[in-house]
Amino acid sequence: MSNSITLQKLAELVGGELWRGEPDDVITGLNSITEAAQGEVTFLGNPRYLPALKTTRASAALVKEDLAAQDAREGLALIRVKNPTVAFSSVIRWFGPPAPAFVPGVHPTAIVAPDAKFDPEKVSIGAHAIIEEGVTIGDGTVIHPGTFVGRSVRIGANCTLHANSIINERCVLGNRVILHSGAVIGSDGFGYELVKGRHQKIEQVGIVQIDDDVEVGSCTTIDRARFGRTWIGEGCKIDNLVQVAHNVVLGKHCILCAQTGISGSSRLGNYVTTAGQAGVTGHLEIADQIMVLAKAGVTKSLTEAGAYVGFPARPIAEGRKIMAGAARIPELIERVRELEKKLAELEGKVAKE
Amino acid sequence: MSNSITLQKLAELVGGELWRGEPDDVITGLNSITEAAQGEVTFLGNPRYLPALKTTRASAALVKEDLAAQDAREGLALIRVKNPTVAFSSVIRWFGPPAPAFVPGVHPTAIVAPDAKFDPEKVSIGAHAIIEEGVTIGDGTVIHPGTFVGRSVRIGANCTLHANSIINERCVLGNRVILHSGAVIGSDGFGYELVKGRHQKIEQVGIVQIDDDVEVGSCTTIDRARFGRTWIGEGCKIDNLVQVAHNVVLGKHCILCAQTGISGSSRLGNYVTTAGQAGVTGHLEIADQIMVLAKAGVTKSLTEAGAYVGFPARPIAEGRKIMAGAARIPELIERVRELEKKLAELEGKVAKE
Amino acid sequence: MSNSITLQKLAELVGGELWRGEPDDVITGLNSITEAAQGEVTFLGNPRYLPALKTTRASAALVKEDLAAQDAREGLALIRVKNPTVAFSSVIRWFGPPAPAFVPGVHPTAIVAPDAKFDPEKVSIGAHAIIEEGVTIGDGTVIHPGTFVGRSVRIGANCTLHANSIINERCVLGNRVILHSGAVIGSDGFGYELVKGRHQKIEQVGIVQIDDDVEVGSCTTIDRARFGRTWIGEGCKIDNLVQVAHNVVLGKHCILCAQTGISGSSRLGNYVTTAGQAGVTGHLEIADQIMVLAKAGVTKSLTEAGAYVGFPARPIAEGRKIMAGAARIPELIERVRELEKKLAELEGKVAKE
Repeated sequence: MSNSITLQKLAELVGGELWRGEPDDVITGLNSITEAAQGEVTFLGNPRYLPALKTTRASAALVKEDLAAQDAREGLALIRVKNPTVAFSSVIRWFGPPAPAFVPGVHPTAIVAPDAKFDPEKVSIGAHAIIEEGVTIGDGTVIHPGTFVGRSVRIGANCTLHANSIINERCVLGNRVILHSGAVIGSDGFGYELVKGRHQKIEQVGIVQIDDDVEVGSCTTIDRARFGRTWIGEGCKIDNLVQVAHNVVLGKHCILCAQTGISGSSRLGNYVTTAGQAGVTGHLEIADQIMVLAKAGVTKSLTEAGAYVGFPARPIAEGRKIMAGAARIPELIERVRELEKKLAELEGKVAKE
Repeated sequence: MSNSITLQKLAELVGGELWRGEPDDVITGLNSITEAAQGEVTFLGNPRYLPALKTTRASAALVKEDLAAQDAREGLALIRVKNPTVAFSSVIRWFGPPAPAFVPGVHPTAIVAPDAKFDPEKVSIGAHAIIEEGVTIGDGTVIHPGTFVGRSVRIGANCTLHANSIINERCVLGNRVILHSGAVIGSDGFGYELVKGRHQKIEQVGIVQIDDDVEVGSCTTIDRARFGRTWIGEGCKIDNLVQVAHNVVLGKHCILCAQTGISGSSRLGNYVTTAGQAGVTGHLEIADQIMVLAKAGVTKSLTEAGAYVGFPARPIAEGRKIMAGAARIPELIERVRELEKKLAELEGKVAKE
Repeated sequence: MSNSITLQKLAELVGGELWRGEPDDVITGLNSITEAAQGEVTFLGNPRYLPALKTTRASAALVKEDLAAQDAREGLALIRVKNPTVAFSSVIRWFGPPAPAFVPGVHPTAIVAPDAKFDPEKVSIGAHAIIEEGVTIGDGTVIHPGTFVGRSVRIGANCTLHANSIINERCVLGNRVILHSGAVIGSDGFGYELVKGRHQKIEQVGIVQIDDDVEVGSCTTIDRARFGRTWIGEGCKIDNLVQVAHNVVLGKHCILCAQTGISGSSRLGNYVTTAGQAGVTGHLEIADQIMVLAKAGVTKSLTEAGAYVGFPARPIAEGRKIMAGAARIPELIERVRELEKKLAELEGKVAKE
C-alpha cells in the first residue's frame, strides 16, 4: 500500500508506455473515469466510457494502444497498455489495502472433530467455525469465522471459505476454490414423488464435487445429487444468488451470472456463460461456448455455439428479429386493418364493374 | 450400507420382478443411466432417457412394467417395477451412506435460554446454536450448528434445522419440518409508507406459521406478516432461493421451485406448483391445482386449474399459441408488405380500367 | 401490549373520528379484513378489498374519510382516518408484542477484537458475533447473534444487524441501517479477464457504502466495488434476495423489491423503484422517479421518469400495447391469410376481365 507514484514508475508498473505526460508528475490515487479527481489515475476499459475521457478530472489514464490522442482531454497524461482493465489491477495493488496476512492456526472457539485431517500450521480456521468428523483440509486453506464444514467433506489446498459459508457432508472441493459468505454447498436436491396426495421426499444421497479454481458467490446454492454427484468443472465462476440443482454438471470455465438458475440434471459444456437471471430447465444439454443472455430461458437442448435470447431461448439473430417484430405488432394491426378496408373497397368496385 | 447384492435379492429389495438376467449375478453399486459402469444398477425414470438404455454400461436397470425388451441393450439385466424412480430409493438406501445417527443432547457451546422448553434427552442441539427465551422444541428435533432460534419460537417434533438456518421470534413450526442451511424464516415483511419524501417503515409484528411436513430450501426467505400470519400449509415443499412475502398464504401440498417469488398477501390454493423463476404479484388468489410454468409471471387471480405460461401468465394453450405466433412476426411483416404492394398494384390496375 | 380498547379510545389512538358505532364497545384484537373475527378491528387499506367490508366478521374498521356508509356491513363500527394503513400501525402497537428491550453489553461468547471502538454500555453485541480488528460501532446499535463484522468496518448509530448477517472488511454503514438475517455486504464483485483460456480474477478492493436509514433484506447480496465504492444512497429500502453488483450506485430513497438484480456499474437516480424479479444490465443510468415493473429487464439507460415494462423494458403505454398486441398475433395470422386468399381471388377476377 503506497500513497503516490510518478507517471514514469506507473508506466513501468503496468508494463506500458508513457505516451503523453511528464515522467516526474506524481499520481496520488486511483478511481473510475467518472469519479476520479485531480491527481488520480483512471483507465478506459469499456469503450462506452470513451466520451468521459474528454471530461474526466483524472490526471492520468491507462488506455489501449490504438486510442486517438484527440479522444482524451488535453492535459490528461496517457499511458498505453495492451489491456487497460487488466493493467489497472497493478495500480489497484499499488494503492490498495494490503491483502490480509495468512495467519495459520485454529481459533480456540472453533469446533474441530478430533479426526479431522489437516496441518494446523498451514491452515487457518476462524472463530466459531465447525469442522465435523472425517474432514480433510489442504494446506494454505483459510476457513473464515462461522463456517460449517460437514462430516467427511474434503477440501483441497489454498481454498478460501468466507464467513458463514456452508459445505454439507461428503462434498468435495478442489484446490483454490473460493466460497463467498452465505454460499450453501450440498443441501438436498429438490425431489418428491406424489404418493396418495402427499409429496414423499426422494432421498438425496449424492454429493457436490467442485473442481479446482472455482469461485462461488454469496448465497448461491448448489444442491447435492440424488446419487452420484452434482459436478462443477474446473475454473467455473458462479456469481451471487445462483441456483444449481441436483445432478447438474457444469463443464470447465463456465460463467454463471447472478440469479441464474440451472434445473436438475442439465449438463453444460465448457465455456458456457449465462447472464443475469437466465434459466435452464431440467435434463438439457448445453453445448460448449454457448452464451445465454440476460433473463433468457432455455427450454430445449442447445447444440450450436453462439448467443441465445428470450423465452423460449432462440439464437440471437432470430430472437432479436422476433423482439423487434413484437414492437411492430401495434403498427401491423393498423396495416392489416387498412388492408382489409382497402380490399373491401376494391372488391366493391370490381363487383360493380 | 452394503457393497453388493445379487440380482435376485435386488428384485426383492425393490418389490419388482427379475425379468431378464441371472439371479445370482452380483451388482456392486448404482449410478445414473449415463454415468453407470459395469457392475452397477441404474433405472429408467424419465422416458427421455429411453435411448440411453441401449448404450448404458450398467449391468442392470429398473424399468417400468410396460418396457419393450428390445428397447434395452442386450445383456442388460432388467427388473420390472411399478415406479422405477421410487423403487430406486431402496437401492440408494442399500448402497448409500448410513443416515447420521440421532445424537440427543445440547452441545456445550450452544447458547440456550434457561426457560426454553424441551427434553434434552430427545432433542439434539448443535454447536454454537442459539435458542432464545421462551422457545419450545418437540421431541426428535435436530437443530444443527450455527442455527438461530429467536425468542418464543415454537418448533414441533421430528424437525430438522440445518446449519445456519434462522427462525426469528414467535414463528411457529409444525412437525417434521425441514429447514435447509441459510433459510430465513420470519424476517420483517417489506412495507413502507412514503411520508414527506421518506419511506417510513410499517411495523411487521405478525408471524410465520409453517405446518407439518413442510420443507424449506437453502437461502429461501419467508417474511413475517405485517400482523396475523404468513402461512405455509401442510406438506408444502419449497426449493432454494424462493421469496415468500408477508401475509402470503400457501394451501396444502404446494410445490415452489427455485427462485420463485410470491408477493405480499397473495393466497395459493392446494397443490399449486410454481416452476423455476416464476412470480406471482401481490394480493392475488391462485386456485387449487394450478401450475405456473418456468419464468411465468402471474398478474391476475387465477380461478381455473391448469398450467399457465408467459408474462402476463395465460392458460398454456393460449400462451403457447402466442409464443408460437411471436416467432412468426418477421414472416408476417413480410406478408403484409407483399399484400400492400400487390393491393396497390391491383388498385392501380382497376383504376386504369 | 394490551388486550382491549374501547372504540372511543381507539379513535383517539389513531387520530381519527368514530363515525359509526358505540363509543364504549370494546375491541379485543386486530386482524386483516378477511381473517378478522368478532371483537376485532381491521382496516381498509387497499381498495381492492372494498367488497370484503360487506362480509368481514370484524367488529370495527378504520376507513378513509370518503368511504360511503353503505359500502360497509351494517353493524360494523367505522372510524374515519386520513390513511388507514398508516393509522393501523398504532393499533398494531397497542395490541402487538412489546418491542424487545435494548440490552446493552457484549455477550461473553462474542469475539471482539481488542481495538474495536464502541461504548459497551450503549451497544448490544449478541452471542457468537464476530467483531474484527479496527471496527467502529455507533451508540444504540444492536448486533444480533452469529453476525460477522469484518476488519475496519464502520457502523453508525442505532443500526440493527439481524442474526447471521455479514459485513465484510472496510465497508461503511450509516445510522439507523437495518440488515436482515443472511444479508451479505461486501463480498467480492464478479469480475474476470479471460487469459489463456482461464478466467483470471480481477481483484476487488473497493468497499460498500450504505448511507443512513437503509434497510437490506434477508439473503440480499451487495458486492464491494472493484475499487472505489458500491454506494447505497440514504433511505433506500432493499427487499430479500436482491443482487446489487460491484460499483452500482443507488440514489436516495430507492425501493428494490425481492429478487431484483442490478448489474455492475449501473447508476440509479433518486426514488427509483424496481418491482419483483426486475433486472438492470450493467453500465446503465436510470433517471430519478423511474419505476421498473415486475420481471422487466432494462437494457438501455432510461432518462424519462415513468413506469417501464417487459424485456427489453419499454415505457408502460408502449409496452402494454405490445403485450396486448402479442395476444392478437394468432388472430392477425388468420386475418393475413384471409387477405391473401381474397386478394388472390380478386387478382384472378381482375385479370380475367
